[in-house]
Amino acid sequence: MAHNAISAPAIEVDDARRSAGLSWQKLADHIDRPLVWTVAALLGSHPVPREQAEAVRDLLSLSEETTTALQRQPYRVADSDLASDPTIYRFLELINVYGPAFKALIHEEFGDGIMSAINCNISFDRRSDPGGDRVVVTIDGKFLPYQW
Amino acid sequence: MAHNAISAPAIEVDDARRSAGLSWQKLADHIDRPLVWTVAALLGSHPVPREQAEAVRDLLSLSEETTTALQRQPYRVADSDLASDPTIYRFLELINVYGPAFKALIHEEFGDGIMSAINCNISFDRRSDPGGDRVVVTIDGKFLPYQW
Amino acid sequence: MAHNAISAPAIEVDDARRSAGLSWQKLADHIDRPLVWTVAALLGSHPVPREQAEAVRDLLSLSEETTTALQRQPYRVADSDLASDPTIYRFLELINVYGPAFKALIHEEFGDGIMSAINCNISFDRRSDPGGDRVVVTIDGKFLPYQW
Amino acid sequence: MAHNAISAPAIEVDDARRSAGLSWQKLADHIDRPLVWTVAALLGSHPVPREQAEAVRDLLSLSEETTTALQRQPYRVADSDLASDPTIYRFLELINVYGPAFKALIHEEFGDGIMSAINCNISFDRRSDPGGDRVVVTIDGKFLPYQW
Amino acid sequence: MAHNAISAPAIEVDDARRSAGLSWQKLADHIDRPLVWTVAALLGSHPVPREQAEAVRDLLSLSEETTTALQRQPYRVADSDLASDPTIYRFLELINVYGPAFKALIHEEFGDGIMSAINCNISFDRRSDPGGDRVVVTIDGKFLPYQW
Amino acid sequence: MAHNAISAPAIEVDDARRSAGLSWQKLADHIDRPLVWTVAALLGSHPVPREQAEAVRDLLSLSEETTTALQRQPYRVADSDLASDPTIYRFLELINVYGPAFKALIHEEFGDGIMSAINCNISFDRRSDPGGDRVVVTIDGKFLPYQW
Amino acid sequence: MAHNAISAPAIEVDDARRSAGLSWQKLADHIDRPLVWTVAALLGSHPVPREQAEAVRDLLSLSEETTTALQRQPYRVADSDLASDPTIYRFLELINVYGPAFKALIHEEFGDGIMSAINCNISFDRRSDPGGDRVVVTIDGKFLPYQW
Amino acid sequence: MAHNAISAPAIEVDDARRSAGLSWQKLADHIDRPLVWTVAALLGSHPVPREQAEAVRDLLSLSEETTTALQRQPYRVADSDLASDPTIYRFLELINVYGPAFKALIHEEFGDGIMSAINCNISFDRRSDPGGDRVVVTIDGKFLPYQW
Amino acid sequence: MAHNAISAPAIEVDDARRSAGLSWQKLADHIDRPLVWTVAALLGSHPVPREQAEAVRDLLSLSEETTTALQRQPYRVADSDLASDPTIYRFLELINVYGPAFKALIHEEFGDGIMSAINCNISFDRRSDPGGDRVVVTIDGKFLPYQW
Amino acid sequence: MAHNAISAPAIEVDDARRSAGLSWQKLADHIDRPLVWTVAALLGSHPVPREQAEAVRDLLSLSEETTTALQRQPYRVADSDLASDPTIYRFLELINVYGPAFKALIHEEFGDGIMSAINCNISFDRRSDPGGDRVVVTIDGKFLPYQW
Repeated sequence: MAHNAISAPAIEVDDARRSAGLSWQKLADHIDRPLVWTVAALLGSHPVPREQAEAVRDLLSLSEETTTALQRQPYRVADSDLASDPTIYRFLELINVYGPAFKALIHEEFGDGIMSAINCNISFDRRSDPGGDRVVVTIDGKFLPYQW
Repeated sequence: MAHNAISAPAIEVDDARRSAGLSWQKLADHIDRPLVWTVAALLGSHPVPREQAEAVRDLLSLSEETTTALQRQPYRVADSDLASDPTIYRFLELINVYGPAFKALIHEEFGDGIMSAINCNISFDRRSDPGGDRVVVTIDGKFLPYQW
Repeated sequence: MAHNAISAPAIEVDDARRSAGLSWQKLADHIDRPLVWTVAALLGSHPVPREQAEAVRDLLSLSEETTTALQRQPYRVADSDLASDPTIYRFLELINVYGPAFKALIHEEFGDGIMSAINCNISFDRRSDPGGDRVVVTIDGKFLPYQW
Repeated sequence: MAHNAISAPAIEVDDARRSAGLSWQKLADHIDRPLVWTVAALLGSHPVPREQAEAVRDLLSLSEETTTALQRQPYRVADSDLASDPTIYRFLELINVYGPAFKALIHEEFGDGIMSAINCNISFDRRSDPGGDRVVVTIDGKFLPYQW
Repeated sequence: MAHNAISAPAIEVDDARRSAGLSWQKLADHIDRPLVWTVAALLGSHPVPREQAEAVRDLLSLSEETTTALQRQPYRVADSDLASDPTIYRFLELINVYGPAFKALIHEEFGDGIMSAINCNISFDRRSDPGGDRVVVTIDGKFLPYQW
Repeated sequence: MAHNAISAPAIEVDDARRSAGLSWQKLADHIDRPLVWTVAALLGSHPVPREQAEAVRDLLSLSEETTTALQRQPYRVADSDLASDPTIYRFLELINVYGPAFKALIHEEFGDGIMSAINCNISFDRRSDPGGDRVVVTIDGKFLPYQW
Repeated sequence: MAHNAISAPAIEVDDARRSAGLSWQKLADHIDRPLVWTVAALLGSHPVPREQAEAVRDLLSLSEETTTALQRQPYRVADSDLASDPTIYRFLELINVYGPAFKALIHEEFGDGIMSAINCNISFDRRSDPGGDRVVVTIDGKFLPYQW
Repeated sequence: MAHNAISAPAIEVDDARRSAGLSWQKLADHIDRPLVWTVAALLGSHPVPREQAEAVRDLLSLSEETTTALQRQPYRVADSDLASDPTIYRFLELINVYGPAFKALIHEEFGDGIMSAINCNISFDRRSDPGGDRVVVTIDGKFLPYQW
Repeated sequence: MAHNAISAPAIEVDDARRSAGLSWQKLADHIDRPLVWTVAALLGSHPVPREQAEAVRDLLSLSEETTTALQRQPYRVADSDLASDPTIYRFLELINVYGPAFKALIHEEFGDGIMSAINCNISFDRRSDPGGDRVVVTIDGKFLPYQW
Repeated sequence: MAHNAISAPAIEVDDARRSAGLSWQKLADHIDRPLVWTVAALLGSHPVPREQAEAVRDLLSLSEETTTALQRQPYRVADSDLASDPTIYRFLELINVYGPAFKALIHEEFGDGIMSAINCNISFDRRSDPGGDRVVVTIDGKFLPYQW
């Protein structure tokens, strides 16, 4: 019920995962959920349903306290400390630079409204490239018109 | 050389574009640049090379003052006012919720480093969906390892 | 394309409205839109479609500059100055005091998700009461589940 | 005497409530108070009178420490962390977008003054709708004129 | 419709008042309003009714623009610049030091609630004292209980 | 030596005071100090002289740790969290609205300078009123001229 | 009536002073006031009495607008931009590093209270030193005890 | 290695000093260092050399933990909480009011540059005065020209 | 006398420089000053001596207004907008990541103190590298010990 | 996984290093990494590979908890407290003063883009100088062009 990534349950999950030599993808497969959802949930950004929480507990030998914490409805807070981490900050910089362009294109293509951040799937991929491999993040969110 | 989207040159470009009945894609095709780059540049986030600036000027009958302004090297500032616009804010909220997951996945897949926000292409698409059409934004950035 | 209530177009609309002795409800009826939407739009929070903008222009003898400004897609920015006005601040204070209760009730009743601020109607009424008449604001927004 | 929703007493109440399989409405009925008041009070936004605090203690087997904490006069602080939670943030966004409209309508209808956030009832309902069920929050506050 | 004390209308009123050699009390008597209310209103914190605005205009030979501005419903914003002026800051410091005591005493004497800042009269006096004359500010506000 | 009202010593004093069924006025009489001074001091805003600290200790059976803490010279910090509590916030709002008027009246009546927040007595009273009883706070501070 | 050093009147005074080849000390002597007071006042931190304002006007051929502005009661605002100027920032850094020591020494020597920033003289001197000449600033303020 | 004045070591030193009935000057004499330096160092703003730290330990019977902490190289952080303490704040207010004057005088007398906050001695004195005794703080810092 | 890079004089200098087809190095050679100093000074971070200002004026046909502005003593303010520009932000990020290491190394090598930002030369170079050319910035500042 | 320099593991490393009488350079040589990298990593800004972490553990007799913490992927957060430490602040001040010059020179020499803060080596040296020894920090980062 606290900050996203660096809560005690998140640290316990991540340490256990590394000790067990399991990739995030393995955990996602184990509970049959999408990759990005799984990582976000186990770091504290989504409540984990009981069945999945217990499956992860069994796989990683998590404490009961952490297993309970994973199931609580979290506060998804904007953590300005985390935002300054360079790996995360680059995403924010992209919004600073391209946000007005996204806004202009959404309004032109769909009219007045937003892309939902709730009804939204995100995928994460690696694309090999001779100039250096690339991170590919695809955001796929439902358009919601201002509607009265 | 000032705030991104709502500078006077940006307003002049956008008003002229609408009066002329031209889509952003048309402008992008006219100067043979990618769509998102074009919108961002004409709203002030990238310097526009002289040739392209003059091609847009001719198409939209822009003033010389705006044509000059488009070519200047901009300060790409983080504008907290713009960030609170709901259409832009949703993207920031995604980073709040999924940023730590992106960080964990980048480190697992690539090691310690970042996805470049400079060597980075972004595409914008509409995907039709029976549950409501969707905005699809794909970010494709080069991985950069911490390297000494 | 700027701050909501105190932009020059908003002042021109409001001064003209008072000079003409017209209530906000009259303006809403004139353009056949809901009351709260109409006030918000004419103060700069929603783009006004051309037909409605011109209908208001004709009724209030607005300048062409203001008529054009009303039709632009606005940036709906969070203005911390406006937020400290006592009449607006009381609404924010309610969110401070009752926000966690709203969150708990939404999650219990609907599950993990939000009330949309985009697909959302708001009404404003006066309720007479022997202890002093009351402001009644009803917010009616679609529930959106976190959905992958 | 600390932050609203995520204090230790609030967590104890909520965990006990879920373990007991009791809805917030059941708790409200048990102490004969309105629903939104009850949730806010048990999460720390209102002092709970001794009789009601003890009734909740008995129902949920709360600790004495929590029972005492519930009765203390709280500081109702604006918690910017909580405010960034998406479920709460949407309410703040509504005030950003519609606050000036509320202000204009209050002044037109009632004159110079505010809607009280103290003498104010709030109800929370679910309204079923073929396009998706909706959250309905009704704020009913006494108008207070600036009065010398 | 802008910042309180240092708006152009406020400067015009104050300059004219000094040129005319009139005290604030004289202005208050002229429009038959309390002293503190009058100063606050002419500096932009309260809308001035037409009759009083015109009476002040006639007394001080104000411009029509200022006379109109005085009648507008103001945004009463918290101006952090003004708050750092030493003469104003001392009042804020008193709230920092004694605010929790005020809160404790209000709750003990009246129960849970607030002193209204809307139904509130304030007087300003000079009290002569052998140790140095003193400023006496008396705040007299209605208690409002949290009431459902 | 920490935040004013909600430090552990303050909570211990207040809990003991309520258990003993003693009003703040009783404590003030017991140590022969003014009411507002006494509450502020026992909540941590003033150092309490040894004699008075021990008299309160004896009356309320305070711990030695708290008795020592009360005698330390405190840091009187501006706590923005406390400032957002509605009961305290109303006082701040009054300064926002009337601060420039206080400044103008002080300068007119006394010349350039301030009302001292150090040589300053504050009283707190209840005034009964048919329209609802009222909180009366009187601030009586020495004028200090800018003096070289 | 605005920011201290970089207001238009301050720039006019400083430019005129340099053109006339007059030191600040010369201006101070001309109006028979202390050096630091004079510089602060002419940069906008103190109201300048009419006689002195006109004496400076005559000496420097100032405009009437500036002469009037110098006589207005200023808002002495804390300007965070100015505070980051290295020459000013060093003074703030000294307060960061030595402020708690000043506080401890004032309380030990004088008891609970403050050094007045209003009844306070400041001198500025150059002291020659073989290791490099030194700036010597002496602050001489009256102690004010917390006094009820 | 943390906040200046209110760290646990600082409290231990100050409590022990008072119990022993020793003035700060006595401590300064004991370790043969200037007064202000000594107070600042023992409150955590300067690292204390081993010999002096042990001399203070012996005099005040400090714990080994505190003796070690005193010798660590501190982070001298700007603590905005401490800055709002009235006794410290008055010094900051002086910089707000007179900072631009200091800057102007330094530049006129010495040219472009700063007064060093590192090569800088500060003395603290009491000056008796019939109008009330005064705090005298003298800052004596080396001028450093911008030098390439 | 305002923000560094994007003041009107800075824009005039930069536009004139580009029109004339002159590199920054050419300007530096023309006034016989170091490269980084020259760019910083012409963008407003250092006062330009009269002789050099006039030499630049003659070379670039600058206006008298700009020529005068360049000679004024500037306020070197920390501009948080500029700091978010990606090209500048990377330098700040380096300080975030390596600042504590710089501090530890300075203290180990030199003792308690700082590297001067005033007595400090900075050079800017391009280093060719088969993996991509590199920016090389060398900061060479005098160590200043804390010295009493 | 927390703040850089003042985390518990950083304090343990630094205390052990001093007790052992080892310079940072010795540690760097021991693990065969560059000096600045080593200090930053051991203070928490870089993850330390297992082999190096264990080599440091053996050399300094670190606890297992610290040895594990050193290997975790850190959040490299911008810590505004640390930034106000004078030794670190001077570096930030240099960016405030010279940042726009760096930006102008990078764009002139390389075109639109940035100096990488990720592919970037930093060296730290002492340069003896008759006017006082100097700190020399050299930043050598790869230029990255905005590239689509």
